[in-house]
Amino acid sequence: MHAPAHRVAVISDDQVGPLYGREVAERLREAGHDVTVLTFPSGEASKNRTWWAALTDEMLGAGLGRDCAVVGVGGGVTTDLAGFVAATYLRSVPIIQVPTSTLAMIDASVGGKTGVDVPAGKNLVGAFYAPRAVVADTSVLTTLNALHRSEGLVEAVKHGAIRDEAHMISVRRSVPGLLAADAAICADVIARSVRIKAEVVAEDEFEQGLRQILNFGHTIGHALEAAANYRIGHGRAVAYGMVAEARIGEALGITDEGTAARLAEALSPLTERGRLDVDASHARTFLGADKKSRGGRVRFVLLRRIGEVAHEQGWTHEVGEEVARDALNEILHGW
Amino acid sequence: MHAPAHRVAVISDDQVGPLYGREVAERLREAGHDVTVLTFPSGEASKNRTWWAALTDEMLGAGLGRDCAVVGVGGGVTTDLAGFVAATYLRSVPIIQVPTSTLAMIDASVGGKTGVDVPAGKNLVGAFYAPRAVVADTSVLTTLNALHRSEGLVEAVKHGAIRDEAHMISVRRSVPGLLAADAAICADVIARSVRIKAEVVAEDEFEQGLRQILNFGHTIGHALEAAANYRIGHGRAVAYGMVAEARIGEALGITDEGTAARLAEALSPLTERGRLDVDASHARTFLGADKKSRGGRVRFVLLRRIGEVAHEQGWTHEVGEEVARDALNEILHGW
Repeated sequence: MHAPAHRVAVISDDQVGPLYGREVAERLREAGHDVTVLTFPSGEASKNRTWWAALTDEMLGAGLGRDCAVVGVGGGVTTDLAGFVAATYLRSVPIIQVPTSTLAMIDASVGGKTGVDVPAGKNLVGAFYAPRAVVADTSVLTTLNALHRSEGLVEAVKHGAIRDEAHMISVRRSVPGLLAADAAICADVIARSVRIKAEVVAEDEFEQGLRQILNFGHTIGHALEAAANYRIGHGRAVAYGMVAEARIGEALGITDEGTAARLAEALSPLTERGRLDVDASHARTFLGADKKSRGGRVRFVLLRRIGEVAHEQGWTHEVGEEVARDALNEILHGW
Repeated sequence: MHAPAHRVAVISDDQVGPLYGREVAERLREAGHDVTVLTFPSGEASKNRTWWAALTDEMLGAGLGRDCAVVGVGGGVTTDLAGFVAATYLRSVPIIQVPTSTLAMIDASVGGKTGVDVPAGKNLVGAFYAPRAVVADTSVLTTLNALHRSEGLVEAVKHGAIRDEAHMISVRRSVPGLLAADAAICADVIARSVRIKAEVVAEDEFEQGLRQILNFGHTIGHALEAAANYRIGHGRAVAYGMVAEARIGEALGITDEGTAARLAEALSPLTERGRLDVDASHARTFLGADKKSRGGRVRFVLLRRIGEVAHEQGWTHEVGEEVARDALNEILHGW
């Protein structure tokens, strides 16, 4: 019996493509699908409107209709970019995400945020668009270099910091096993992080309230990434961002004292903590473009303590320009 | 008492902007809102990714955050383009549509389809994104030129043709009053058309089934528009498309004989019916890129009779290449 071929576009970058994109395409072909393989240059610099348009036009050129599906195979850049292509292609076709990095498994592939970066900042254009399925094979992680593996775990520390102190402690304790890509330990930490994120997203898919807590560390983190023109990785930038934002909370008397130090201790085995080669005034400009800003003022997610976000009049706090600027300047020197 | 200013981006084209965009902005300012006015060059040629990106960047440059709203003031090009800007700005901000043309009031502003044209064809990139509100002031129609007023009514004829024979007859009977912009007659026809469209959309917002019937006349219509590089208006193109697609249905024995002739009679006072200056092979290429195509084959919505769409195995029918090509070639000579 011949099942009608379903048309599939497999999107991955030029590093992951030859490794896993091709393999996923092969399996889909064996299952009787008609597969088009699309690639883009690896790196955050490709997560832009130009590549979004080019991938879209390639799919149109291949004659893919509304009955097609997109499969994104790769790290966070790929899942964000392929997701936004799928969200807007013929006003949306299904996306299946196949994350191949720690970061994408823990974070980027969960929760349906898709999008691209623009000159004004990171992820400022996009769509909330949930994948039909996420297929994560943790054995793939053994092939990542140690830096990619460890920086991806910064988001796991974040999940602990905002919702589950025990998870943060467990991530810290599991670092040797995680860095050695021990399959059982990786699967356990990833599953627990995904569960935390999924609970938050299930309660507030479109980020009207609670979901904002997932942005802890990202207000300053995104500004650092953009100001560095994405030469520093997302995980590393968020680590600096979390320490800086914990210090802001402590300075305002909202966050328990010692919280920034505990975060720094948990993050230190995962990423470098030295001085950043980022222009301070450049970073301040990007801070002003943050998506959480309201009426032109930047807002921060602030911890009460490890495992709990401060929540008085909403999940974000307006922070005076001077306090934010001081924290930004300070974190550029390392932590 | 001072209400906190809400930030609003008013988007309109450079023809409607000075007339109504500015007026809408003024009223919003009087109500205490902080208003940014954005304009783009009038015409379908601006409904592209370049203008979508430029308007987005202008809003980012103005520091508009997630608490802003977009107001689209204009015809169908504006409501589609402004809608897609809002759908993707910071992963979506609310849109309020203020349609100022017959076509936009009857059709484009209802149902949440937003998007842009790309080289491969019309509306091939976009999002389903419902407006928070649609504000239609039919007195505005008196200022449209007769051509814009009448070609917009082609969609009203379509609403009758697919769902409500009496509506088609009533539109035909109302033509003198509609062309004279008689307020009561316009309001009546628009309200009935919006009701038909809204019923269909309510049943199938994301076009998985029934909503496809709204594409009657659009498969060939969009191909004609794209092949003419949008030098012919949407209403006119859809009129040619409906007659051609009724003829396809008649040729296949699906549509009652005489249906194409009745449609032609109803449409004749609304638009020109002469030969089109469009390259046939160019139009055939665009036909292949239609969003309803599946497995590479083009599908058509076909009438059973005036007021009823044929519905056997789904709402669309696969049509042989030769039949589609013949109908396309024939309609280029006029009807």
